[in-house]
Order: sequence, then structure tokens, then C-alpha cells
Amino acid sequence: MAPAGGPGTKKGILERLDSGQVVIGDGGFLLALEKRGYVKAGLWTPEAVCEHPDAVRQLHMEFLRAGADVMQTFTFSASEDTMESKWEDVNAAACDLARDVAGKGDALVAGGICQTSIYKYHKDEARIKKLFRQQIEVFVRKNVDFLIAEYFEHVEEAVWAVEVLKEVGKPVAVTMCIGPEGDMCGVAPGDCAVKLGKAGADIIGVNCRFGPWTSLQTMNLMKAGLGAAGLRAHLMMQSLGFHTPDCGKGGFVDLPEYPFGLEPRVATRWDIQKYAREAYNLGVRYIGGCCGFEPYHIRAIAEELAPERGFLPPASEKHGSWGSGLNMHTKPWIRARARREYWENLQPASGRPFCPSLSKPDA
Amino acid sequence: MAPAGGPGTKKGILERLDSGQVVIGDGGFLLALEKRGYVKAGLWTPEAVCEHPDAVRQLHMEFLRAGADVMQTFTFSASEDTMESKWEDVNAAACDLARDVAGKGDALVAGGICQTSIYKYHKDEARIKKLFRQQIEVFVRKNVDFLIAEYFEHVEEAVWAVEVLKEVGKPVAVTMCIGPEGDMCGVAPGDCAVKLGKAGADIIGVNCRFGPWTSLQTMNLMKAGLGAAGLRAHLMMQSLGFHTPDCGKGGFVDLPEYPFGLEPRVATRWDIQKYAREAYNLGVRYIGGCCGFEPYHIRAIAEELAPERGFLPPASEKHGSWGSGLNMHTKPWIRARARREYWENLQPASGRPFCPSLSKPDA
Amino acid sequence: MAPAGGPGTKKGILERLDSGQVVIGDGGFLLALEKRGYVKAGLWTPEAVCEHPDAVRQLHMEFLRAGADVMQTFTFSASEDTMESKWEDVNAAACDLARDVAGKGDALVAGGICQTSIYKYHKDEARIKKLFRQQIEVFVRKNVDFLIAEYFEHVEEAVWAVEVLKEVGKPVAVTMCIGPEGDMCGVAPGDCAVKLGKAGADIIGVNCRFGPWTSLQTMNLMKAGLGAAGLRAHLMMQSLGFHTPDCGKGGFVDLPEYPFGLEPRVATRWDIQKYAREAYNLGVRYIGGCCGFEPYHIRAIAEELAPERGFLPPASEKHGSWGSGLNMHTKPWIRARARREYWENLQPASGRPFCPSLSKPDA
Amino acid sequence: MAPAGGPGTKKGILERLDSGQVVIGDGGFLLALEKRGYVKAGLWTPEAVCEHPDAVRQLHMEFLRAGADVMQTFTFSASEDTMESKWEDVNAAACDLARDVAGKGDALVAGGICQTSIYKYHKDEARIKKLFRQQIEVFVRKNVDFLIAEYFEHVEEAVWAVEVLKEVGKPVAVTMCIGPEGDMCGVAPGDCAVKLGKAGADIIGVNCRFGPWTSLQTMNLMKAGLGAAGLRAHLMMQSLGFHTPDCGKGGFVDLPEYPFGLEPRVATRWDIQKYAREAYNLGVRYIGGCCGFEPYHIRAIAEELAPERGFLPPASEKHGSWGSGLNMHTKPWIRARARREYWENLQPASGRPFCPSLSKPDA
Repeated sequence: MAPAGGPGTKKGILERLDSGQVVIGDGGFLLALEKRGYVKAGLWTPEAVCEHPDAVRQLHMEFLRAGADVMQTFTFSASEDTMESKWEDVNAAACDLARDVAGKGDALVAGGICQTSIYKYHKDEARIKKLFRQQIEVFVRKNVDFLIAEYFEHVEEAVWAVEVLKEVGKPVAVTMCIGPEGDMCGVAPGDCAVKLGKAGADIIGVNCRFGPWTSLQTMNLMKAGLGAAGLRAHLMMQSLGFHTPDCGKGGFVDLPEYPFGLEPRVATRWDIQKYAREAYNLGVRYIGGCCGFEPYHIRAIAEELAPERGFLPPASEKHGSWGSGLNMHTKPWIRARARREYWENLQPASGRPFCPSLSKPDA
Repeated sequence: MAPAGGPGTKKGILERLDSGQVVIGDGGFLLALEKRGYVKAGLWTPEAVCEHPDAVRQLHMEFLRAGADVMQTFTFSASEDTMESKWEDVNAAACDLARDVAGKGDALVAGGICQTSIYKYHKDEARIKKLFRQQIEVFVRKNVDFLIAEYFEHVEEAVWAVEVLKEVGKPVAVTMCIGPEGDMCGVAPGDCAVKLGKAGADIIGVNCRFGPWTSLQTMNLMKAGLGAAGLRAHLMMQSLGFHTPDCGKGGFVDLPEYPFGLEPRVATRWDIQKYAREAYNLGVRYIGGCCGFEPYHIRAIAEELAPERGFLPPASEKHGSWGSGLNMHTKPWIRARARREYWENLQPASGRPFCPSLSKPDA
Repeated sequence: MAPAGGPGTKKGILERLDSGQVVIGDGGFLLALEKRGYVKAGLWTPEAVCEHPDAVRQLHMEFLRAGADVMQTFTFSASEDTMESKWEDVNAAACDLARDVAGKGDALVAGGICQTSIYKYHKDEARIKKLFRQQIEVFVRKNVDFLIAEYFEHVEEAVWAVEVLKEVGKPVAVTMCIGPEGDMCGVAPGDCAVKLGKAGADIIGVNCRFGPWTSLQTMNLMKAGLGAAGLRAHLMMQSLGFHTPDCGKGGFVDLPEYPFGLEPRVATRWDIQKYAREAYNLGVRYIGGCCGFEPYHIRAIAEELAPERGFLPPASEKHGSWGSGLNMHTKPWIRARARREYWENLQPASGRPFCPSLSKPDA
Repeated sequence: MAPAGGPGTKKGILERLDSGQVVIGDGGFLLALEKRGYVKAGLWTPEAVCEHPDAVRQLHMEFLRAGADVMQTFTFSASEDTMESKWEDVNAAACDLARDVAGKGDALVAGGICQTSIYKYHKDEARIKKLFRQQIEVFVRKNVDFLIAEYFEHVEEAVWAVEVLKEVGKPVAVTMCIGPEGDMCGVAPGDCAVKLGKAGADIIGVNCRFGPWTSLQTMNLMKAGLGAAGLRAHLMMQSLGFHTPDCGKGGFVDLPEYPFGLEPRVATRWDIQKYAREAYNLGVRYIGGCCGFEPYHIRAIAEELAPERGFLPPASEKHGSWGSGLNMHTKPWIRARARREYWENLQPASGRPFCPSLSKPDA
């Protein structure tokens, strides 16, 4: 019997995007599960899918409830170069978890790969493509709905990834973890997008390393590049859930707060509603998050775009739009917060008067 | 057959505290589950224990892994005045969930009640005590290990709670949600503690509404009050996981950021290690958290006090002490963060240069 | 011929205060002249009155124009212990400069002394009183209108000063440089005020070391102390022109920014209008400034209290009330700033996102 | 008899610059004298030279003492379009004051003109040049040493100014009040510089409207433009004494704090030492300040560049290098501040926790 899911049971990713539908991605697994106790910072590998499947399944469930249309397999860095022999079981288990939860809603399963640990030392195309192919074979066996290549800081490696993903006939999304200054070799975002489009990617964009506002700039440059080259591709954004206006080219990993002091930078749900609206206005139709995006951030995207999508996500049964749940509070000054204007204009204090508001990146 | 747990199977809460052992509490369920999509802000009621037991169980599991010695039933506000007929099922289900997870480790189950919605309008002792008794009856039936009365802003109602809890013969902990200025009627923290001690509470302290540093001041005043009165009680702290130096008497609910803009105030794990150490140095031996405390904050308490306790919690398998997990990073400036001095002295930036660092409370 | 000024020519300080008039003091000479190049930080001595009399006269003129009713001799620390043989010439020249400028308006001349460099090492009453007497003899010879003993951190030494000043029959004002925690020996502000009142001071208050809001608290405590003791005295405030909410007991000298990095703390004119109003509401009728108070700050006091005083100071010919001078600007958004509400509510940014908003005092 | 000064008595501005000497400009008169009570914000005209010459002379004296090599006539906006019939007396008196003070040292007198109030409404070259010629005629009659055209936001008008100034045979400096985005018509800084160089300006640069770091960027672009065009000119900078990283194209006038809430943005002397050093390293040899530059800021330039210049300014007799004057303080923690490393690394707090660190410009 064929695995559940697959062609026929649900509208595919490209059908959705081609018809103008907004697709909501999920949030960040690594940092969320690090805080929950299942992922080790520094390693950032997803062995939790085998060790603690219930914890991973629960996070998938929360993103599904929050409105995510995609359950991305938790297979970040799950390749032979970083996980040795464990890589295959992890990929398989991650697919099963994602499919299991996706089946509880209208979500698709995306098999995810990311940049290798090898590229920066050896630009060995054959070896790197072999690593990608290993992961893809599992994804094909498990019949995921489409593929995502994400977190690439060099466009050349991203192109290799797209080339491998295209071999198996499933839709391909690719996102780079770059900012407006471009990739680590100085290739501008517009040029990166063009290279990825020419390699055949169906969906192109950015994820991770930069906060919402910075990533919107990068996305804008990518869009302009594709337009100038006369290429068509769907646009995708999965930015950080952190404010990082002080990032340098290397993104948030170079900020002194990374990874254990990022708390004051976490976006509010209202910040994310603005991000979702601006991404939508830019023409992005696949909108999700990366590190720092918790389930309620994904819900914020789904709520902001509910008029366009025509429905609210399940988790909105536990959330009054724009704070309206506060309108029965006993204190009048808290009731006064039950309105959009209040939260849209709030400039939240850090409670940290001995701290600066910006940092200088270490590199 | 008697329910699992109960006398005999594990060392009780007072045995532990009397022997000088540090007891680690759990963190905050309401705000954590609000972000996960299962609790509605404004209502702040725990029907999730019936509606989505897996989500609640998972959070219990994370706190257990993080080192919590107590699984407190998620029964905040689960009384007839706020939940109508649902209250009984919620209390029963919450006990079962807590016991189920507690059984996977050496944790105790604590049945929890809090202030009623009635007191501020009608200081009706009989009616209020009746509400408390209803919840307690379930806790007795489910044979919880001890009882916690928490989140009282008036000492009179807290005393009533202690009186009811004492009726059933289990150890009684009581915490007020007050700051150094005392309860809403102006009773000073030291006097509150004395009243609670005289009412028979075994464990006395503060929870919620104020951040770590403010709560330490309150705790200090309570301790001094008990000492001056010649009373003995174990001390307990479960502060907010938010920095709130700008709170007024009413605590964080009066801050403009409550409850949907508190992100920049979230404590880092390093802040919580300092909190745990200072609480310990003050003589507090029951140390946990309230709103804003996520599993990794509880782990931080367990790691800070590992020398005293003699062991690390399970979740520390995924956490290098003081950032040591970064010592194999490819970037040397990130490796340089793999040390205690770095994180202890970091003043994390908010990434929000248009925001102030303190707010004026609305009341 | 008697020196100009003196009894008869103008209403004296006590006549003014007794009749309910508001008396406006001048601002700070040391820091203003340090920035102008005539006073050396660290030494903080007033030899400029001899070396560069034009520079000192100009600053007196500016304060007079700004509305100051008192020209205080620039004789801070001009006693034998700190200035050796120069002390006498400095005191005499300072009197002449102050009298010269006072004669151009309705201002009085106040001879000023401050704490000695000796007290903290040797509480030698006889020696210290002798130093005070030396300065006073010059003031009597020059026939100043009244005397001010200021900048005392120990009330005992301040009492000695008052005792000496009282010997010569002129009105005596005395101000301490303490905060709400009291003097360096822990004498509370209320008790300090009582001791000074009993010693015969006509005017009592605070100057220097703490910003406007902190000094208002101290003043409030002094007023309460005097009231409780049934003593009557006129109240006087000359706070810093810097915001110092983070001061410890020792005041601004212990802040890391002292004395060469205080710029971001300088009060705006609008801050000072609020200070003047609050001081007035507290019952203070001698209102001026100390370090950090520039001429425009004194003008702000005079403008805020113009309704009570019935006139504006000369320098207001160059200042539109509440920014009204901007109402003819070519840019409409700058014209929009020509109103009280704008400036009253402005929260001015520091332009320094890498700096904290508060510091920890070094002691 | 020819007026004092003029050719022969001192080395001229071009002789100095051509020989590689550093020339230190003066600071800002308008804002300094506004705070002293002699200039009205909004009008920003220099009638004080007639009304209160002592006040203006004193400020010249302070800049001279601080190390300024140039006494610029206080003739900003002193043309017929803004001052009506008063313009001629003001220009003449300003020359006399500047010459008088310049004579007390080795300073030169520069006659200064600025953009007209007409250009933005009528680009009437003839009328505007006539206004410039009127002022120049006074400067020629008073025999100033050289001419400065400053504060131009449109390069076209600046070119007209240079053309007029060149008619009289004196050296010509010209500075624009633009940022890295260029002039109000979008002419890039490099192109502006080239146009000014081709018009015959001897000294080219920026003044006002932007803080030190932003102006250094603009200067860098100007230098690059001149270099690319093969033009040679001396470089000149007179930036604001305020930190304005949040400025838009229009500069500080568009910031909400302008002009009455800029206090927290004032640069420290240490900031200015860095500015002087960076300007020097960029090849700028005429270094001064504009609005917000007080005498001690000019002294900071002179002290930073003392090694290159070979001498300290007179006002340094009242200033220990890098805080060394604190080394005899009685408190050891204040003595510990008597060193360069301390002040260079200080991140001064604003004392304003309710304020943001950056603002959004109004336009």
C-alpha cells in the first residue's frame, strides 16, 4: 500500500500557489525544541524525532492548529555529514511524524534539506549532491508532497540542491539565509534568485538569519531580480522571529546575543501581523517563519491574512482578534487594551534599563 | 485500589524540605499554553486539560525533564465561579495528567487553587471557602501529595484558603502575588507571612505578578516578618519570568505590555540562574516560576543548583553548562561565547531602538 | 562710601520670601565654565573670577537675563584649605563681579560657602569654623545681601556653617547635597532639616548631586520633618540639571558618566518647567539650579512661574513660550511643534542605541 | 589706514592648508547663544552682534581659547531677505567682533554667508547673487581673511555662492548641509563636490544637519567624487555636535527633538576626539563644528590633534588630557576614571528609561 498523502488526496503546493492561495508555513523547530529541552544548541541536530517523537509531534500539532498549511519534516542537518549513521532513521521518522500530523488537517508534507557542513571547506559538488540525494531518497520513499532546500548562505550550493531536488519530479522550494548584502561570496539577492530560478526552483525566497524587516528588504531585491530577468517563481519568506536591525552580513549568529540571550528581540504577535501584511503586499504567497517563530506567531500570520484566506485557524478559538479577549477584564485600564489601535502602536519596553537597544555584531 | 502515588511511594514535600533538600517547582502553564494555542488570554482558564490533554501532558513532561520536582495540577481558576459546571471534570482530569507525568520521575503532585473572582466584590467567607472545598474534595479523591494555594492579592482570602486546605491533613503551601508594597489592602509582606504562618501554612512565599528581582525583595520582607514573629515556615518563590522593575503595586498586569507585548521582558536562562542562586542564598528551598517561565527556565534553576542537589536534570543532556555547547562552532567568535563569564556579563540588546526600556504602569 | 547694594536699596531676600514672592536662583558655574574653558574638572575651584573675570561676568549676566533674582558669588571651595593664599582675592573679586551684575537688575548678591575638604578626615569644629569665618569676613566687607551655605553632605558640618553665618546678622540659607537616603552618616532629610532649622537657618533645602525628581523627594522629606517639628523655614531647591534616577546615596559623582559623559542626561527646558512647577506646588519658593543648569534652564523656571511672578525675564524676548517661535517655519511638520502639548509629551531619543538608559553607580 | 589683519600679518588659510597644517574651525553660534539667551529659535538670526556684542565676543573668545584658528563672522542669515535693513549693520559689527578676538591669537577671520530663504521658492540666480554680493561687500570692506559659504541644501545655489565669492579674490570655502543621500534634488555628495570644485572653491566639505558619523560618510563620498574627477581641493568638516544616526535625508531638523529636545544627543568630548581623528585620517584638514558644538568640543579637536599640531590650546590649561584631572579625587572609584581607556569605552546612560534611543524623522 502506498503511504498516505501524496498526489490526489489534497491540493498540491503549486496548485495552491498557482491559484493565488496564501500558503502559511510553519515556525522554527530548533530553537523552540531547544527551549523545551529536546535539541542541543551548538549541534542543532534533530535526533529528537527518534528520541522524543511525542515532543516533536506536539510542536507539529501546534503549528497545524495555528494555521500552518505545511508540515516540514524536522530534518535540518539530518544528513550523513553531521549525523553519521543516524541520518537515515531520523529522516524516515521525521517524515512519519509530519505525515501523521498533516493528516489531521489540510496540510502538506515538505521534505527539507539544508546546506551541508562541507561546502565552506570543500566545494565538492559530487560529494555534496550525494548527501542531498541520500536524504531525498527517504523523502521519495515516504512520498512527501514537495521539497524544500533551505538555509543556504552560498547560492552555488543552493543551486546544486535545486538540481538534485528537481531530479525526483516533485515541486521544489528553495530559500537562502541571506540579507540585503547577498550571499557569502557577495552575490546580490537578485542574482541569487535568478540563479535559483534558472536551476528550476518553483518557489524562491529567504529564511532564517535576519529579522522580518530585513528579510522583507532581501525579498524585495530577489523579486526585483527575478522580474528584471523575466523569470517567474512563487515567492516564499520564513524570516526569524527576532528583531535584528543591527545584523551585519552574517546575520543573527554574529550578534552577541546568539543563541542564549535573544529573548528581548522576540517579535510580538503584532509585529508578525505587520510582517505578514507587508510580505503579502510584496507579492509573497508562501509565508512562514524560522528560528524564533513560535506557534502563536504562525497564528498571527493566519489571523492577519484571514480576510484573504477566508477562514481563521483552529487556534484562534483561543485568541481574540487584536486583544479583544481582554474586553471583560475587571480592570478598566486593561479592558482599554482590547483594541487594534492599542497593540498596533504599543512600543513595548524591555524592562532592562541597563541594556542597550542595539548591539555591534562580532563579525 | 488506591490511586497511584500518595504516602509511602516517594518522599513527601515536607520530608524533602525538612531535610534541607531543594525542591524545584514547575513553570507557568497559562502563558506557555496561550502561546501554544490552548489557553485564551483574558479568560485564563484551564479547560485545555479536558480539550487537549496531550498538549498539557507534554508541558508537564517538559517541566519534569527540566528538573521540576512538583507537577502542579493545571487547575488555576478551575472553580465553580469561573468555570461553571466544567470545574469538576477539569480538576479531575488535571490531577490525572499531573499524576501520570509525575510517575515518570521522582516528582510529587500538588493540587492547586487560587484566589476567587468573588472576593473583591463580596468578602463572603462562607461562599469562598465552599468554592475552595469543592476543589479540595477532588484533590483528596485523587490523592494529590500536597496542596498549593497561590495567586492571592489579599491576605485575608489567602488565610481562608489555608484554613480550608488544612482541614484535609495534607501539607499546605501558600503564595501571594504581591510585591514589596504588600497586599491590595496595604498589609505588608512581613505581616502577610505572619498571618499565613499562624493559619498553619507549612510553606509560605510569593508567586506571579512581579519579576525575579522584585519578588526577591518581597520574599526578603516575608522572611524578616516570620523571623521577627518567631514563626518557622519553609520559603517558596515562583516569580514571573519577566523583568518588571517598573511595576507598581498591582504588578505586571498594570504594565502596558500585559499580556500581548511582554516579549522583550522575558528573562534569559542566565537571569534565572542568578535568581535561583539569590533565592537559595536567601534561604528559599522551594524555587520555581510562574507566568513566563518556560521549561528552559526551570532547567536553569536545576543547573544552577546542581551542586547543591547533586545531579543535573534529564533535559541537561541537551544543554551545555554556561553555553559550553558552542565550543565546537566553526566561527571563532561564536566559540568565544562558550564560557560562563560571557553569558553572565552579557547585557542583551532589544533590537528595538524605538522602544523605551521602562514603562509607566497604567495604574 | 558704603559699597553699592545692601540694606535699603532693594527688597531683601527675607522680605521677598516672607511676602510670598518666588525667588529664582541662578544655575551652575563650575560645569558651565568648565565647558567654556575656565574651570578645571577635578579641582573645581573658582580662580576664574581673578583670571578671566569677563567670562564669569558674562555667565552672571546670562543668569540675570534668564530671570535669576540672586547672583551668588562664585566662591565655591574658595577657602584657605583648597586655594591657599589665593582664597582672599578670589572671594573679594567674586563679590565685586556679582555685585556689578546684580546692579543691572533687581537681583541680590549672596555670598556662598560650601563644605570643607577637611571634615571627612578631621571633624575639627574650630578649624572648620575658622575657615568659614574667613570667607564670611570678606562677604561682610563687600556687604553681600545674604549668605548661602551649600553642598554639605554631613549635617553636622552644615550646622557649624549656619552657626558661623548667623554671627554676622545677615539672612542665612543652607542647602545640603543629599538624596532621600539622607546624609553620609545616615541622618534622614527630615532630621537634617530640623537640625538646620534649630541652628537658625532662615532658608533650608537641597542643592546638587541629584536630579530634579530625586531632589523633589528629598525636599518633600525635609518639609515633612520641619512640619513635624513645628519649625518654620523657607524652602529652597537647586537641583542638578541632569537626570539621575539611577543614583545611589552618594549622588551623581558615583555614576560612571561623572563628570565627562553626562551629556545624555542633561534636562530639557521642558523638564525644568515641570521641576519648577512641582517645586512650587511643594511650597518651595527659592528655586534655582546647580551643576548642569545653564541659563536657558533658569529661564525655563522663570517662564513656568511667570503667571505667579507677573512678568517674564529679559531673555524671554528671545524665546517663544512652549516653542511658539517655530510657528513660522517653512516646513509644516516643524510648525506642528509650536505648541505646549508637543514638548510636554516628547520623549526625546538619545541617538545612542548602543548605550543603556541607566547605569549602576560605582559606589 | 587699512583695517587690522589682512594679508601679511598672519599666514593665510591656504598657506596653512597647503603646507599640511591642520586648521581648527569654531563651533556653533546659533544654538549656543540660544541657550545663553541671545538668539531666538525659529528666527535663527544674528542680531545679537549689535544688541549684545559682549555675549558674542565672549563666545568667540571661548572658541579661540579652545583652539579655533578661525573666527567666523556671526552673519548666518544676515542678508537682506531675512533681516531687512538691519543686515548691513549686523554684517559690519560681526566682522569687527571677529577681528577683535582673532587679534588676541593667531586666528583668521572668515566672512560667512549661507543659503537664502528665496531659493526654494524662486531659483532666481540674479536676485540671489545680489544678496550674496551685498554681504561680500561688507566683508571686503572689513578685509576678512577668507570667505565661507555654508549650509547649502541645493548644490546649484552653492555654486552660485562660490561664483560670487570668487569675484573678490579671497580664498573660498564652501560646505553643504547634506548627508550621504545628497542634496535636496538628489545630487550625490560626490557630484556636489565636483560641481563646487569646478566653480573654483578652494575648500570643500560639509557642515550642520548631520552628526559626526553621518557627516564622515558624506565627506568620504565627496572626497571620492573629487578624486574620481581628478580635482584637488582642501576638505572641510563642521558637523553637528549631536548624534543623529536616525536622520533621514533632511537631517536633524526633521527629528522630533529639533530644536528644543536635543539634549540627550549631545556628543561628549570623547566622541568629538574620535570624530577629529577619523576626519583627520580621511584627509580632512579643516575640522570644526556646527550646531551643538560648544567650546569644549572644539578643545577636544585641538587636544586630539595636538600631536599633529605640536601644541595644546590655551583652554587645555583647564583640562587634563583624557580625564587625568580626576587623579587626585578623594574617592578611589573616581580616580579610576582618570585614564583614556575609561572614557574611550564608556557607553553613557541617558538617565531616561522611558525614552527610546532612536526616533523616526517627521519627514
